[in-house]
Amino acid sequence: MLLSKLCCERTKEAPGDAKIKSHILLARAGYIKQVSNGIYSMTMPCQKMSQKIQKIIREEMDACDGQEVLFPVVMPRELWETSGRYQSIGSEMVRFKDRSNHDMLLGMTHEEAAVHMANHIVSSYTQLPMMIYQIQTKFRDEARARGGLIRVREFTMKDAYSFHNTKEDLEDYYMQMHKAYQNIFRRIGLKRFIDVKSDSGMMGGSIAHEFMLLTEVGEDSIVLCNHCDYRANMEVATSVLDKPSFEDTKLTLVDTGADKTIEEVAQRLNVDAKQTAKAVVFAVKGDQDQVVIAFVRGDLEVNEAKLKKAIKKDVVAYDGGATNSVVCGNIGPKDLDKSILVVYDKSLEGMCGMVVGANKEGYHYTGFNFSRDIENASFVDISKVKAGDKCPICGGDLRIENGIEIGNIFQLGTKYTASMGMTVTGPDGQLFNPIMGCYGIGVGRAIASIAQESNDDNGLIIPITVAPWQVHMCVLRQDDPIVQEKATKLYNDLQAQGIDVLLDDRNCGAGIKFNDADLMGMPIRVVVSPKSLQNDEIEITIRKNKESYKVAYENSINEIKNLIAKLEEEYK
Amino acid sequence: MLLSKLCCERTKEAPGDAKIKSHILLARAGYIKQVSNGIYSMTMPCQKMSQKIQKIIREEMDACDGQEVLFPVVMPRELWETSGRYQSIGSEMVRFKDRSNHDMLLGMTHEEAAVHMANHIVSSYTQLPMMIYQIQTKFRDEARARGGLIRVREFTMKDAYSFHNTKEDLEDYYMQMHKAYQNIFRRIGLKRFIDVKSDSGMMGGSIAHEFMLLTEVGEDSIVLCNHCDYRANMEVATSVLDKPSFEDTKLTLVDTGADKTIEEVAQRLNVDAKQTAKAVVFAVKGDQDQVVIAFVRGDLEVNEAKLKKAIKKDVVAYDGGATNSVVCGNIGPKDLDKSILVVYDKSLEGMCGMVVGANKEGYHYTGFNFSRDIENASFVDISKVKAGDKCPICGGDLRIENGIEIGNIFQLGTKYTASMGMTVTGPDGQLFNPIMGCYGIGVGRAIASIAQESNDDNGLIIPITVAPWQVHMCVLRQDDPIVQEKATKLYNDLQAQGIDVLLDDRNCGAGIKFNDADLMGMPIRVVVSPKSLQNDEIEITIRKNKESYKVAYENSINEIKNLIAKLEEEYK
Repeated sequence: MLLSKLCCERTKEAPGDAKIKSHILLARAGYIKQVSNGIYSMTMPCQKMSQKIQKIIREEMDACDGQEVLFPVVMPRELWETSGRYQSIGSEMVRFKDRSNHDMLLGMTHEEAAVHMANHIVSSYTQLPMMIYQIQTKFRDEARARGGLIRVREFTMKDAYSFHNTKEDLEDYYMQMHKAYQNIFRRIGLKRFIDVKSDSGMMGGSIAHEFMLLTEVGEDSIVLCNHCDYRANMEVATSVLDKPSFEDTKLTLVDTGADKTIEEVAQRLNVDAKQTAKAVVFAVKGDQDQVVIAFVRGDLEVNEAKLKKAIKKDVVAYDGGATNSVVCGNIGPKDLDKSILVVYDKSLEGMCGMVVGANKEGYHYTGFNFSRDIENASFVDISKVKAGDKCPICGGDLRIENGIEIGNIFQLGTKYTASMGMTVTGPDGQLFNPIMGCYGIGVGRAIASIAQESNDDNGLIIPITVAPWQVHMCVLRQDDPIVQEKATKLYNDLQAQGIDVLLDDRNCGAGIKFNDADLMGMPIRVVVSPKSLQNDEIEITIRKNKESYKVAYENSINEIKNLIAKLEEEYK
Repeated sequence: MLLSKLCCERTKEAPGDAKIKSHILLARAGYIKQVSNGIYSMTMPCQKMSQKIQKIIREEMDACDGQEVLFPVVMPRELWETSGRYQSIGSEMVRFKDRSNHDMLLGMTHEEAAVHMANHIVSSYTQLPMMIYQIQTKFRDEARARGGLIRVREFTMKDAYSFHNTKEDLEDYYMQMHKAYQNIFRRIGLKRFIDVKSDSGMMGGSIAHEFMLLTEVGEDSIVLCNHCDYRANMEVATSVLDKPSFEDTKLTLVDTGADKTIEEVAQRLNVDAKQTAKAVVFAVKGDQDQVVIAFVRGDLEVNEAKLKKAIKKDVVAYDGGATNSVVCGNIGPKDLDKSILVVYDKSLEGMCGMVVGANKEGYHYTGFNFSRDIENASFVDISKVKAGDKCPICGGDLRIENGIEIGNIFQLGTKYTASMGMTVTGPDGQLFNPIMGCYGIGVGRAIASIAQESNDDNGLIIPITVAPWQVHMCVLRQDDPIVQEKATKLYNDLQAQGIDVLLDDRNCGAGIKFNDADLMGMPIRVVVSPKSLQNDEIEITIRKNKESYKVAYENSINEIKNLIAKLEEEYK
């Protein structure tokens, strides 16, 4: 490809909304161009990079006996009603009426379409296990699109669906896919990626893992143990609770004046925050009159994902509800309105001598005993892990890092096959619902992750396995006929060898060419100049470590091929 | 791939709505599964075929210096307002509001997105010509989805956009793309395809060609000359008009009673239909009060596409309009309401002695002279060519065939670059709007066209260049360990040679296997059976001509490789 003709503009300045490295660099290098909020066009370098990533994904999926198929982007309401998700998914799913007034939607994921395809085709256990996958455009109407390709509304995604006879077979296959995902991330050049246990969220199912790229700009919090390999998404992470023991005293109403926060009350009563209980008020999503109060120990925070799972309902912040509020004053566990759904965190189980709200303006109780002073309370884990908490596996210190989700895998169970009536005949002649797994990777997210992790002050550093062009040739003094002849020959010869080459054939200075080459980030830079040609040499520079050396023009094809092979080694 | 695990069901019966061969066979062979009206999932064989077609398309586009990019499926209203198409395109374009209440749409074509990408990046004439293309999902809310993949609502399409400094450069490039399109259709195995001049429709621009597959089930009418190579889409086809001359007589009002049709009136007055004028009433789309009357000679029909072009307005059937109809009785050219837009066909220019309606119930005029009896009339070609008309190039007989549009190319001019303010600096330092071309091919339509053209009573006959698997191996007596061993070895060895093989490893009879192989349509069938292995042989059958022969098991890899090469020759 000739750079002079490439539809891709390099700029000094990034768009105003670009705050993170990957967004700034992909925009400045001309890889992406924004069309709307969270919607981008990809220019040739970005699309080539996308295709190289897709090729690696295909190879790994095919190695897991995947069958590549294609599901539609637009689906009818009826298909999504079979699983119940037409109702349960919120405004992140685009719904519209077609010209015949039928309700349609844009797919964000394709469990329903996968079951629709496999249903009836798969009728016997002998046909399983089976995995189908696609690489397709998806649209998710994100409220907070951000970070260039990190969190977009439209994206290209590989999504795979497996069907199994037994839970054990799913678990085996799940591990195979887990390995394939590790292969993919390694092969596309990511370094600091890990897998963490995660919440299965809107997918349903039980066991799930997310693959995360650890990076400061990640918006997910990941809990990691400093001693063992325990790691989990904040949403499901647990820790060993230290349970201090306090004296079991009499329940006493005390005046706490205008003090409201845990800090204020603890200070006034001269107790540690651990000796208090905090109430956090929510409402069931869609019904502000259905109040949910979560109690956690004063030094802890409520983990909303855990709370939702515990009550099997989606919750949102409580806005005060209808006319007659059922909560008032300093909220506490005693004598709460019976209509309120109350959840107690494990941290409060068996605790006595505690400070709690008295449901009365200006007052708290001291000496509250969670075994004595409330009835029928059940205690579940709904609190957030903090840095320094103890690992639930080894007791070591936990730390928290930020991460970007780069892939996820789920053991779905029979949620979709049961609701959609997909059955196969087992060896005993009995019908059963196959057990499913599903597995996703966003291609654009992968591009952004690579850009986020692999760069320097001068621009992108694209791994050779996914680089749009392996070689970026800079021709200095394009107007010198000998230079032009030698450069053109090398360009053609490299391409004849199957090497992707971007040739900077512009009539401009070396500085501009080198800056553009650094910014665009191809792994190998080749300089053909009158000076080096005087010694019958060309200059090779490795982008990632700036190592430069000269090789004889005669040997340049072999030298470059060997260098490519050497660079590729790293990602095998 | 093992057929026993393939998520693809072969059936005896086609879906009830399948009327044409390609739909019936693609459904029966399990290539497609309907999800909604005009929306299909593609199983692995169909997706593999799609990818092989896409590969050929990419090769031909890259040979035309195309840069593969990716535009979004979902675009904002504002982008389409710049070109005026947000308003001008009707309900075939899906519009919806996103969660922030912004107007969004699903792309049917990407001229606006292409200009949006190229704008600012291309700033100098030296960067042109330049072509960008994508292969992407599109959604067009067709009122009449039909024929399986022939006319769908969601489809995968390659769309390309070129930018040029001069009209001459566009014309040269257009011819290069024209050739690339011929290459693509030949390489994917289509036979009876032709290019025809066409109307540029909603794209704008002037010169356009459609590539058509000639087939009885096509819904487009194509005019072809039996003698020269003149051919055109019915919408733009012209013919040499025979202009009979009639005696110029006095204008006379005659009683024609209840006779209304051309046949009735011509019979009553004892004249040929050619001596009459027919009025066809339309209304401007969206305004039934704005009446358009098109007059053509009695033996001809109005060509709506030509009429729309002539009046530069979209027309629909007239439904009688508002309360006071401006047309009544036998409609004729004399004394028509001034508010009516009247268009005369070339066939009426200079004609005299004609029978026309008198705008009065029960009466016609005879002796009407189009030069004498109306004022300021302009005559334009708005009539349909008929079979037997004379070729406008050589005077030979024209015939009409049906066709399916399989691709189209347009010389757009500056419609989009001017409306969207895209300028580049010319050699003289002056800014100008680049001249554009655009070029489309539907991938699913190509699959359906191949299925429509290439089949027999037993099923599909897929050309080797696009076949999901080149070889379909049928193993007879899978339970015989020697058969199984030899078959597995051959299967593995063929795949190691890069040959795509589908292995029918099911425990079922030869008849079922052969029927499925015929239905699915792979070009080469290989049978491994106890009988042939007794002579150390396997049997090869060529799907398209049913030629069968035995080859030594030892030589089978080479024999199959040679056969593939031989079959591929046909499509080069």
